[in-house]
Parts: sequence; structure tokens; C-alpha cells
Amino acid sequence: MQTLTITCPDDFHLHLRDGAMMHDVVEDSARQFARAIIMPNLKPPIVTTAQALAYRERIKSALPPGCRFEPMMTLFLTDNTPADEIRAARENAHIYAVKYYPAGATTNSENGVTSIDRVYPLLELMEEIRFPLLMHGEVTDADIDIFDRERVFIERILDPLMQRFVNLPVVFEHITTRQAVEFINQGPDNLAATITPHHLLLNRNALLARGLRPHYYCLPVLKAEQHREAIVAAATSGHPRFFLGTDSAPHARHTKESACGCAGIYSAHSAIELYAEIFERAGSLDRLENFASRFGAEFYGLPQNSGSITLEKTDWTVPADLHCAGDTVIPFWSGQTCHWKLK
Amino acid sequence: MQTLTITCPDDFHLHLRDGAMMHDVVEDSARQFARAIIMPNLKPPIVTTAQALAYRERIKSALPPGCRFEPMMTLFLTDNTPADEIRAARENAHIYAVKYYPAGATTNSENGVTSIDRVYPLLELMEEIRFPLLMHGEVTDADIDIFDRERVFIERILDPLMQRFVNLPVVFEHITTRQAVEFINQGPDNLAATITPHHLLLNRNALLARGLRPHYYCLPVLKAEQHREAIVAAATSGHPRFFLGTDSAPHARHTKESACGCAGIYSAHSAIELYAEIFERAGSLDRLENFASRFGAEFYGLPQNSGSITLEKTDWTVPADLHCAGDTVIPFWSGQTCHWKLK
Repeated sequence: MQTLTITCPDDFHLHLRDGAMMHDVVEDSARQFARAIIMPNLKPPIVTTAQALAYRERIKSALPPGCRFEPMMTLFLTDNTPADEIRAARENAHIYAVKYYPAGATTNSENGVTSIDRVYPLLELMEEIRFPLLMHGEVTDADIDIFDRERVFIERILDPLMQRFVNLPVVFEHITTRQAVEFINQGPDNLAATITPHHLLLNRNALLARGLRPHYYCLPVLKAEQHREAIVAAATSGHPRFFLGTDSAPHARHTKESACGCAGIYSAHSAIELYAEIFERAGSLDRLENFASRFGAEFYGLPQNSGSITLEKTDWTVPADLHCAGDTVIPFWSGQTCHWKLK
Repeated sequence: MQTLTITCPDDFHLHLRDGAMMHDVVEDSARQFARAIIMPNLKPPIVTTAQALAYRERIKSALPPGCRFEPMMTLFLTDNTPADEIRAARENAHIYAVKYYPAGATTNSENGVTSIDRVYPLLELMEEIRFPLLMHGEVTDADIDIFDRERVFIERILDPLMQRFVNLPVVFEHITTRQAVEFINQGPDNLAATITPHHLLLNRNALLARGLRPHYYCLPVLKAEQHREAIVAAATSGHPRFFLGTDSAPHARHTKESACGCAGIYSAHSAIELYAEIFERAGSLDRLENFASRFGAEFYGLPQNSGSITLEKTDWTVPADLHCAGDTVIPFWSGQTCHWKLK
């Protein structure tokens, strides 16, 4: 039996939602990851330290006794976030970053930033206090093609921002394009990116070419094969500013198989196994540990986790569906074979 | 009240399906169109003249008494279609063309042609007897990006085919790209194209940018805005080798709002009204009649229809859903406003 033991990984981009859904999905992450950056796009969004801490308590209390999974909380940035909230969050040990969503970019982002200029004073403050900014890297202008939204974000938003705030730690979340890879590769040390398992495994044909597949619908949307190849090369390159972030997001089946399907893919159930498969296919299994367990922590200035996990090289089938919150969630890779299994 | 009276139009690309669904949708087409080219991709496909004539009888008997709607039948081309079936079809007054589907390209196309070379002998015969070939203009290779399938079809299939069969009448169905428009514009007189209302009205953002919209899913898939603009320019240009073909295809709602959604948009319900809107937006309402009622008939060598229809400039709302075959069909433009109404 081939096995792979790595330092406990972290998920630097995770949606847990709240209530019964959060209760039923959090163990999937806790089984694999020691820590996770928890996205704040609840309804209503998490915009204050007090809300973030209360949310953290709800997550902690949903975990089985003795489980040491650490939810790393974030604040949702709005046009009207007070500077004092940023300062208070920075001083709190449980809050790790501020999340930027352009208004309307994805699920529960209606309260996002309407124009980046409006939050420049807050970004100055965050730069001064070295508080990471996590960016949903798309523009939302209706006249920009959905497949160009990440590239145009780089040109219009990110490039000027990096030039202006040279000491602000920025994470370009869930990158999907060759242009994003190139921008990170040429970028400064204060810029990093997360990469999801679904963007590494699938191109847009999976969504569109053999029937329409709502369970492969996410934002940023899946891209063409050349872009998938570029992010696989980046993830498996050993470059320390690309690291793991699943963007796992549970949605009840009926919200996906709908006249207006929600964006989001639930990958937490078998995330580290699928990343192992991706790295193995690329002949870079020896680089998985740095991507999953080291580079992200380093970028955030955190110690690496002390424990380890072991994966076994054995085939298993991802369940067709999961029962969560009295509903059905179709997990990523549903009904398909994984070749690595968490011990 | 502004009105527009035009010669009765024809729909040169229509899916009616069969049985109860056909029974419940055929009147939508018959209300607007005098004739329609009926697609043969039933289950099993219409591969013989006998099957086409029996299907025609079923369609005719579903029409209200006195309705003079003429179903123009077609044969489904397979790798194994006998030459004698082509000859028999050509000699029959009710069969107008042969439809080429690459195997697996769209709904019910499993029995389509696996390689164009295999049917070259049949195309030689069709060229000789001047029998139109209607082409689903996409390649289906898994390694070709879904948005490149029409362009690659032109390069690999259509261009060589047009050079080899210089007298074969060919209709490039439901074109969606700038490249297809350019190919037709530069092409010979024996090559024409149909254009659908949905490809004229929507770009791919409608499918993907504000939630996933299965009722906007069709094949060829919606393209980027530059391509939509190119086909609007073509349709409204007055060029006689672009003409109307709705590709209207009814699907029960649950087959669209599904883990694997069917491709197809039901536009027959308000097709001519929407084409009128498209032509009006382009400032070319005076060119609608040729596009809808003349160029197609000319290409097929048919007389124009003797009757006329009148549209009134008045707002009305397309129903949210239709009840067909004991099921629900969501019509194109569902719940939205049309500015022209068939009298």
C-alpha cells in the first residue's frame, strides 16, 4: 500500500454557511484540515468583529468534542466598513483577514464593494497594520464577458492596487486563468493566490459540452483548457505564493438544479484526496505538502501545524449525494473514483 | 397603432418532437409560419422516407381542421444511410433535405455521422440530384473547447466539403460566430445559413453570469457578445443566404432544471415577434420580410407563400410557462416583454 504522510494541511478559502448546513458540513473540513479561512458572505454578511466571533463560536460548538479545527475568521468589506472595525479585527486573535467582493460577483455578495476607490482609505489602514486583503478577483460589469472578468480585474483593479499599496498583503482568491498565474509569478512578495480543486480538475467543457452541469457551476466560472493547464502548472510548481484554498461551498441540490442555479461547488468532502490526485497526475506529489500545509501558513505569518495526515493510494467512490440540513448536497466528484483516501 | 404586414414566413429549422409534446406545440409554429423544415432527430431518428411520411401524417393530424401548415420533412443522415433511401427521399414531394449531425453533438444525435468521410459517397449523390444537406455545424471532439466547435467545424469539415462538392446545396444551421458569418459572406451561392432568435438576442453572459440559466442552454452554446453582434449584422444585412430558422425545441422543465440539463430553447411560441424586435433594434425592420419569408424559400427553390401575417407594435408579456404534454415548458423570453404581437 502506497501512503503519503504530510503535515496537517490548511484550507485558505472555505464557505461553511451557517445553522444546520454549517453544522452538517464542518466535520468534512475538520477531518482533513487543521485550520480554514472562513468566508464571511453570510446573509447578512459578517461585517464586525463581534459578528465574526459569534459565528466562530457557532462553528466551534458544531464540532465534535476534542476536535481542534481552527476557524480563521474574516470580515466582509463593504463601502461603509468603519476604520475602527478594521482596527478592532486586526487586534483580535481570531480574525485573520478582510474579504473583498465586488458587489454582485457571486453568492451573497450584494453588499460588496461597488467601486474599489471607495475603500482605498481602508486599504491604506490595512497596509499600515499589515492586515491581509482577500480578493474575489473578478469585475462584474455587465458588458464584460464572463470569461474575461478575471483578466479585466487584474488590469483595472489589482494591478493599480498592488502599485499603490506596496506593503498590503493580498490574496488573489481562486485564480482560474493564465493571466492570473503570470501576474502572481511576476508580482511582489505581498501577493499570493489560492487555487481550488475544481478549477485544477475541470475545464469549461465539463460544464457545457455534455449537457449543462449545474454541479460544476461556480464563480469564477470554469475556464478553457489552456487556463486549467496554467493553474495546474502554478500549483505544482513549488512557487510559495500559490497555495490551497478549496472555495468549497455547500448548496442544497434544488438550488443548483434550478431555473437560476447557484454558483458554488462542495469539495470539502474529498478535497485533500483530489488535490493529491492532481499533484500525482502532474508528477509532483512531493510538492503537495508545501502547497497544502506550508506556503499558506507562511504567507499569513502563521506556524505550520504540528500534526500530520496520511493518505493511502486506494480507489474509493465519492458518494452520489450527501444529506445535509435536511436536504441533499451533491458533492464534487459525485459518483466518481478518487485514487487517494484519507486514513 | 404601428403594424407590420409581411408575406407568411417559414421556419427553416424546427424541432417538434413527437406524440403528446408535438401535439401541444405544433400550433405555436402553425400560427406564425406557413411551412417549417422539421428536424428528424427523434428517438429513434427518422432515417427512411417511410418514417418521414408517417411522422408527417402524425404532425398533420395534430393540426386543427383547415390549418394549412406544411411540415417539410428531412432525413437523419447516419454512417449507414443507403443511397437508395436518399434517392427515394429526393423523389418524394414531402421530403426536402437531409440533416447531418456529428454523433453526440446535441439532443438525440447519438446515431449521427462519426466521420464526414464516411458519407462522402452519399454527398456525391446528393450533389448530383441537388438535394440540400443541412449541417449541425460543430465538431464534437472532446479536446476542442465548446466555444471553438463551430470555428473548427468550418476549418475541418465545411471548408473542405464546399471545395469538394461545388454543387451541393448546404445550409449551415443555427450559426453563432463571426467566423461562420465571414465564411457565408465569402462562400458560394450553394451555401446558406439559418439564424435563431436566441443567438441573436443573447450572449453567453445570459447563460452564465447571473446564476446558471438552463433555459438559455442550447447547442451550439450562446457565444460572446462580438459574435452575437456579427450574426445580428448578418441577419439584418439583406444578404440572401442568411435566413430564418428558429431551432425551437420543447423540453419539459424538469429535463432542463436537472443535474444534466438538456440543450434546447423553445422559441416557437413568440418567434416572429422576437425576430421583429431584433430587426427593429437594428434599424432594419424593412428587411425582416426577406429574412423571414423570401430568402429561405429561394434557397430551397420554393415559391413564396401567398398569404400574409400582421404584427402590431404593442407590449405583451410572454407567459412564465406553458402546459405541454402533461408537463411544463418554459418558453423563451418567459415573463419578459415582447414589443411586437402577432395579430
